[in-house]
Amino acid sequence: MQKIQRAIISVSDKSDLKLLLPVLRKFNIEIISSGGSFKKIKDLKYNCIEVSNYTGFSEMLDGRVKTLHPKIHAGILNIRKNKKHKKELKIKKIPNIDLVIVDLYPFEKILNGNSKFDKLIEHIDVGGVTLIRAAAKNFKDVTVISNIGEYEKLSKELKKNKGCTSLIFRKLMAAKAFSQTAYYDSVISNWLNKELSIKFPSLKTIHGKLSENLRYGENPHQKANLYEGSENLGLEKLNGKNLSYNNYNDIYSALSILGTFEKNKGTIIIKHANPCGASLDGDQISSFKNALNCDPVSAFGGVVSINSVVSAKLANILKTKFFEVIISQGFENKALKILKKKKNLILIDCKKFNFNSSISCNFLGNSFLLQDSNSLLFSKKLRIVTKRKPTNEQLRSLKFAFSICKFSKSNAIVVAKKKSTIGIGSGQPSRLDSCKIATSKALKFSPDKIINSVAASDAFFPFSDGIQDLIEAGITAIIQPGGSVNDSKVISTANEANVSMVFTGTRHFKH
Amino acid sequence: MQKIQRAIISVSDKSDLKLLLPVLRKFNIEIISSGGSFKKIKDLKYNCIEVSNYTGFSEMLDGRVKTLHPKIHAGILNIRKNKKHKKELKIKKIPNIDLVIVDLYPFEKILNGNSKFDKLIEHIDVGGVTLIRAAAKNFKDVTVISNIGEYEKLSKELKKNKGCTSLIFRKLMAAKAFSQTAYYDSVISNWLNKELSIKFPSLKTIHGKLSENLRYGENPHQKANLYEGSENLGLEKLNGKNLSYNNYNDIYSALSILGTFEKNKGTIIIKHANPCGASLDGDQISSFKNALNCDPVSAFGGVVSINSVVSAKLANILKTKFFEVIISQGFENKALKILKKKKNLILIDCKKFNFNSSISCNFLGNSFLLQDSNSLLFSKKLRIVTKRKPTNEQLRSLKFAFSICKFSKSNAIVVAKKKSTIGIGSGQPSRLDSCKIATSKALKFSPDKIINSVAASDAFFPFSDGIQDLIEAGITAIIQPGGSVNDSKVISTANEANVSMVFTGTRHFKH
Repeated sequence: MQKIQRAIISVSDKSDLKLLLPVLRKFNIEIISSGGSFKKIKDLKYNCIEVSNYTGFSEMLDGRVKTLHPKIHAGILNIRKNKKHKKELKIKKIPNIDLVIVDLYPFEKILNGNSKFDKLIEHIDVGGVTLIRAAAKNFKDVTVISNIGEYEKLSKELKKNKGCTSLIFRKLMAAKAFSQTAYYDSVISNWLNKELSIKFPSLKTIHGKLSENLRYGENPHQKANLYEGSENLGLEKLNGKNLSYNNYNDIYSALSILGTFEKNKGTIIIKHANPCGASLDGDQISSFKNALNCDPVSAFGGVVSINSVVSAKLANILKTKFFEVIISQGFENKALKILKKKKNLILIDCKKFNFNSSISCNFLGNSFLLQDSNSLLFSKKLRIVTKRKPTNEQLRSLKFAFSICKFSKSNAIVVAKKKSTIGIGSGQPSRLDSCKIATSKALKFSPDKIINSVAASDAFFPFSDGIQDLIEAGITAIIQPGGSVNDSKVISTANEANVSMVFTGTRHFKH
Repeated sequence: MQKIQRAIISVSDKSDLKLLLPVLRKFNIEIISSGGSFKKIKDLKYNCIEVSNYTGFSEMLDGRVKTLHPKIHAGILNIRKNKKHKKELKIKKIPNIDLVIVDLYPFEKILNGNSKFDKLIEHIDVGGVTLIRAAAKNFKDVTVISNIGEYEKLSKELKKNKGCTSLIFRKLMAAKAFSQTAYYDSVISNWLNKELSIKFPSLKTIHGKLSENLRYGENPHQKANLYEGSENLGLEKLNGKNLSYNNYNDIYSALSILGTFEKNKGTIIIKHANPCGASLDGDQISSFKNALNCDPVSAFGGVVSINSVVSAKLANILKTKFFEVIISQGFENKALKILKKKKNLILIDCKKFNFNSSISCNFLGNSFLLQDSNSLLFSKKLRIVTKRKPTNEQLRSLKFAFSICKFSKSNAIVVAKKKSTIGIGSGQPSRLDSCKIATSKALKFSPDKIINSVAASDAFFPFSDGIQDLIEAGITAIIQPGGSVNDSKVISTANEANVSMVFTGTRHFKH
């Protein structure tokens, strides 16, 4: 137990001081403060010594130098049971400071407010971070409160222990303090790196604020939480039960694809983070019906994402199916009323979803792979490699199929008619298997559409067997990256069947 | 351009000072320093003022308070073109400090050395971090060097600009400085949270050191880098070309499974981060052959992981196949010689691979999902739900199949004979499709083994159709979590076919 005699308070957000000050007075804790905090404490009629009076050194440089003084920091950093330290303090007449309460300049808030560079710089807290870190380092003797959200815990702790704090409380607060300073500098560091277009700095930190305790993780025996970055996800839940880990994962997959669609057009259905139906048809109803028809069996319990405002007409169709989540660019009032009747059905408005992340990260235990987001569809000019050329309509269809391939797990084959998928084969170690899955789905659910349909492959065909399977099913135009040693054989196979083939030169593995 | 007149140097690693000091002298840069850095500079016969002489305040608390002084920090933090600041400095007779060179106490190194708590605490740098952050905040006027790796860049910059630094150089160094402090506090924060068993703190930072520039990312148009955490991956490459992004991803998948195998036993073959063959057979050769035989077509170009020391006999078999990567617990000298003849073949010794990560992280743009690693196979007691009971051998085989399911993308079905897979179906939106893929692989490559084989499912069967497909193929024992509303129908189907079924109560989705 450590009795608290003296506290230093330096807080940017002063709103809750009135709740804490009575407790500090109750236990006769002397207060040192400066600037706005000092003024606020005096206004609230509490005793307080100004930092400059305490140190004998007046505040400088518009507040840039206030607490960076040895009298303050020796008061915090000395080890109480160390006799040498005690003696040094006595000689220099430096009293102990046992409690540090800091609320940092709100750099992140100012950053999100799109302020000018100079204003941002002014909001980088130096003195406050130093106070927090000094106190946290010396947590065996000093209590640090680095966030106004901890005032209540401090009050309880002081009351429980008659003006003292326990070692475990101080250690806990120290852990919070270093989380705070790490987070704070991570925000600054990522901002500065972005300003300088540095995507891969030699030291990288990633930061998040706990925003939701999830029921569980991928599986019920795994605990999980959602952390949001400096910009939040921007999803608005309008109905239904709490989102699960897998819901978030599926929703993110859905919105990654939706982000590439033309405005107000298209439907995507996701199951296990994989597309199981997609359509860019203009009409909302036919777009949904076509997406669903790609694999109506697997769509059961999936996530449906509509890239427009859901109408009452569509709502009446949606309500007859079982989906876990419906995402859209909003819902007409009538539509919302219809769908809200299903209490568990999760409805999400994604109008404010934040699509712009330029980097993606893949964890390997404690290490991670950092890469550019896969943000383009074609990095090279398309090249028609067969005698037969695709028609303009086929070319549009091929591009659409290739765009869905990009978001399907490798090896991925997407069969499409116009701008709707009719068969998706993905997640297979063999490309031939993916071809067979895609064509068998198309033959099963869209036998009327497979003749003269098109197909896309996320990577090159290593052999002709996959192509052969597609051709036999009735596909007459194929798009693929090309680049295999067997390209000439593959092209021959297409030519022999009078099928057109386009090489993209761009591969879209997704593992 | 900013002329540098005065520098403060406080470095933990003093080894490269001798390279930098001649440059500072060349441009008549005055040096302030303290403690070990001061001593080193004097030993090297350079002029230097001791901090305590400079500030008039003697070093205290065994070096805990040295540079935390307003004369130092006002000298760094003042805005040079601000007249008010200039006047304040003149009144207080504080000179400018234009260059800050700090190398922090090596907290991470000490942490990895398993030091005692008290020693670790002593290695949390307070003064050095404050110097870095103050200088980085004021980068418009001040140059900060936060890492001894930047000495050469500083020397070049000073020489190029005759003792000055450019604004862009200072900004770049400021970005590096905040990356350094963010990383530093992230290490401390994660350590303290771990000490306190806090897995999900309200503010979370993740840190990594750039350890390898990769040729490209998942696809050639994506740049990528590997970042290693405080503990590195522990992979030793013995032969072959540089590892790619997808190699790392596959290797991590392989080792995640290998980590669950009995010591010195087993083979796993990975393609596109998915298992395409696994065997826990005791004999090294038959284990490899069985793993390969599960899908010899898809294994082409895959990652093979051997949980023992590769013998010359196995090497002679391996050399006849095309694999991209072979991982093992080491290679006999003869084996290494045989395999090294293939210049491009990547050989990895994983003896020091670091398996212990208790948390997994999944990125959704700038946000992330943090969850417990899926570190157990069964969280509940197994329950036999059919009239027929599995034999002990079948039970061992069922557990093995279920353990491979855990690492296969959902929906996953694994068919096994003894302790080798003979068919894996995964990554499908429909469980029935996964059943069909698994049984068709088994029928194709192991027609002699499928009768009386066993099957595992990563999640419950929603209907009897999948079970029916497995039974028709010849499977006589099934393991699955159970928990569907249709469980009783599913059990009936098994009973009617006199097939045994085990419920685990534990699900293993992997998306």
